[in-house]
Amino acid sequence: MATLGSIEYRDASPEVKAVYDDIMTTRNTDWINNFWKALASDPVTLRRTWESVKQIMAPGALDAVTKEMIYLAVSASNQCGYCIASHTAAARKAGMTDAQFAELMAVIGMANETNRLASGYQVEIDERFRT
Amino acid sequence: MATLGSIEYRDASPEVKAVYDDIMTTRNTDWINNFWKALASDPVTLRRTWESVKQIMAPGALDAVTKEMIYLAVSASNQCGYCIASHTAAARKAGMTDAQFAELMAVIGMANETNRLASGYQVEIDERFRT
Amino acid sequence: MATLGSIEYRDASPEVKAVYDDIMTTRNTDWINNFWKALASDPVTLRRTWESVKQIMAPGALDAVTKEMIYLAVSASNQCGYCIASHTAAARKAGMTDAQFAELMAVIGMANETNRLASGYQVEIDERFRT
Amino acid sequence: MATLGSIEYRDASPEVKAVYDDIMTTRNTDWINNFWKALASDPVTLRRTWESVKQIMAPGALDAVTKEMIYLAVSASNQCGYCIASHTAAARKAGMTDAQFAELMAVIGMANETNRLASGYQVEIDERFRT
Amino acid sequence: MATLGSIEYRDASPEVKAVYDDIMTTRNTDWINNFWKALASDPVTLRRTWESVKQIMAPGALDAVTKEMIYLAVSASNQCGYCIASHTAAARKAGMTDAQFAELMAVIGMANETNRLASGYQVEIDERFRT
Amino acid sequence: MATLGSIEYRDASPEVKAVYDDIMTTRNTDWINNFWKALASDPVTLRRTWESVKQIMAPGALDAVTKEMIYLAVSASNQCGYCIASHTAAARKAGMTDAQFAELMAVIGMANETNRLASGYQVEIDERFRT
Repeated sequence: MATLGSIEYRDASPEVKAVYDDIMTTRNTDWINNFWKALASDPVTLRRTWESVKQIMAPGALDAVTKEMIYLAVSASNQCGYCIASHTAAARKAGMTDAQFAELMAVIGMANETNRLASGYQVEIDERFRT
Repeated sequence: MATLGSIEYRDASPEVKAVYDDIMTTRNTDWINNFWKALASDPVTLRRTWESVKQIMAPGALDAVTKEMIYLAVSASNQCGYCIASHTAAARKAGMTDAQFAELMAVIGMANETNRLASGYQVEIDERFRT
Repeated sequence: MATLGSIEYRDASPEVKAVYDDIMTTRNTDWINNFWKALASDPVTLRRTWESVKQIMAPGALDAVTKEMIYLAVSASNQCGYCIASHTAAARKAGMTDAQFAELMAVIGMANETNRLASGYQVEIDERFRT
Repeated sequence: MATLGSIEYRDASPEVKAVYDDIMTTRNTDWINNFWKALASDPVTLRRTWESVKQIMAPGALDAVTKEMIYLAVSASNQCGYCIASHTAAARKAGMTDAQFAELMAVIGMANETNRLASGYQVEIDERFRT
Repeated sequence: MATLGSIEYRDASPEVKAVYDDIMTTRNTDWINNFWKALASDPVTLRRTWESVKQIMAPGALDAVTKEMIYLAVSASNQCGYCIASHTAAARKAGMTDAQFAELMAVIGMANETNRLASGYQVEIDERFRT
Repeated sequence: MATLGSIEYRDASPEVKAVYDDIMTTRNTDWINNFWKALASDPVTLRRTWESVKQIMAPGALDAVTKEMIYLAVSASNQCGYCIASHTAAARKAGMTDAQFAELMAVIGMANETNRLASGYQVEIDERFRT
């Protein structure tokens, strides 16, 4: 159980229900995942977080599946089990293929490796990268 | 100066020169950035790292600019200054626009926020995400 | 089971029992949580860690509940499941309300977001912050 | 220079100026720090980030200085140099004393230590913490 | 179940079997742990990762048990549950004693603490360390 | 300048001087690096941190150079610039060769890569690792 509990749709206040409805409409789905039900104990954070996610994850200069893969890259780097599970599902729903997932993982792994080689070897930033 | 020093092309052994040449050819450029010059003190690591990066970053199921943006997402999450500078340059060279960069940053920021809300609220993984 | 096993009070050596007794007295409780039972296989680390925690977490310029919330902020940022669970309990025992927890989480989330925006955008430190 | 440049007040569009004005009014200050000037190249992210920060950092169940110290705890754990510098300044402006800063640092350090002892020893979460 | 499934030896393609065989021969064992079975859905990543691990973890200037303890230090710092479990087992197989494990954990904990004290206090790098 | 300033030997109180003297004696050196001079504004933290470091880093089941390399592994994973610089120097003073440094870096890099492959692929812990 999440720290402040988990609020189901049927038990939600009107302001929480309004957010839940918008999540389901925006995502074209009929259920709410645990993340939002855990945040719902704090309706202000629920609304602000959802409004931000909705704005940021909408297709723009980057398409939806690219955004979900970036989300997954951050979540895997951070070792967030919940976020890896939920954004793997979201990326697949947005169209990520198994081949894309495999390449995504390879890039994430490599970046985490060279991030530490760069810091560990105390590599200085090249002048060309500063301009 | 990097921990084991920095090896310039003119001072490099034949095996290091071969890697430098392949980097310049593959990337269609005429210079080597500090990361590789720092690794060159250990030719085995230099070669293995380059061969892995070359294989992983080649366009496949994901295109080159998407891969560079994922690299940047990991590097920004990890606070690796060198990697942020070098992969911002690489992503731009691969075609990333300012608008794409801005959306990339917004996704990275949001993912880092919700990663901690999910862990901090002790949200359990939904059954639907486990299958 | 923890890597080196878990030592119950009844099975503990006198030196471990002395630490357990001090933990229970200091915290005004009648049980020992798994963290200490796992460390007890190394009595030197058990004692040093407890003495440090006891010194650091005692009320001083900051009160107990503020210190527990800071502990929780670090633990949530680091994705340490055990630490989030144990310090959420400790913070509540020290008086943290649900409203304070919710605001704490909001600050943690936001800080993790802007930490990556600052690094990702390669923002330079303002002169005014250096003095 | 930040990746997308840094926008000074005199060069800002009306929508950016409006955010800058609100930052200065809310914080009772006459300048804008580099973070916001770097985000200003993306007015949507500038506004959303500022509105979130403004809402979250306003005194509520937690007072302003406690919130700034939590922000600093996250930033120090994440090794974000910019954020450490800016939020140390902000916490001091909000009233943090040197003694409070020193205790804050001690708690941050200890939490980072025990986070790794807990994970490294593979400590299981106590049943009592799950309810 | 891992994201792309888990491939058992009996169901593996010849190229995957060849990697599995090399893992078992190199490690002098008769089973394959889940990590490799999860990667096997992407035979290119499976092979590259195994070849790199095999090359890097072979005794050289550092012996096998030292390398495994370093692996464990990174994994505990990163809160990677799977990696902590698997490399604790690997380090023990390579000869790590309980006393060595306990000292390893103490060093990991302390390093994580002072890493944050150094960043949090904004300590400047000494001139002597730069040469 | 560090946040609370930096205390030189000549300006130190007797209790701070006692710690400085012990550091120089223990390490067989004639100078104090910036980390301790920054902590010295809080003599309680200075003493506790030094006593812990002194106890933990003394040769025991692990020798001094192995402990310094583990310290460096954690510091490189965490991107702590100060700690990488100071512990590279310390490890070299304790006897780390360039070849050992290079292998250390290779292990750190690989561990950071596979940590994210394990989490990203959602690999379950093998039963054999749980006993």
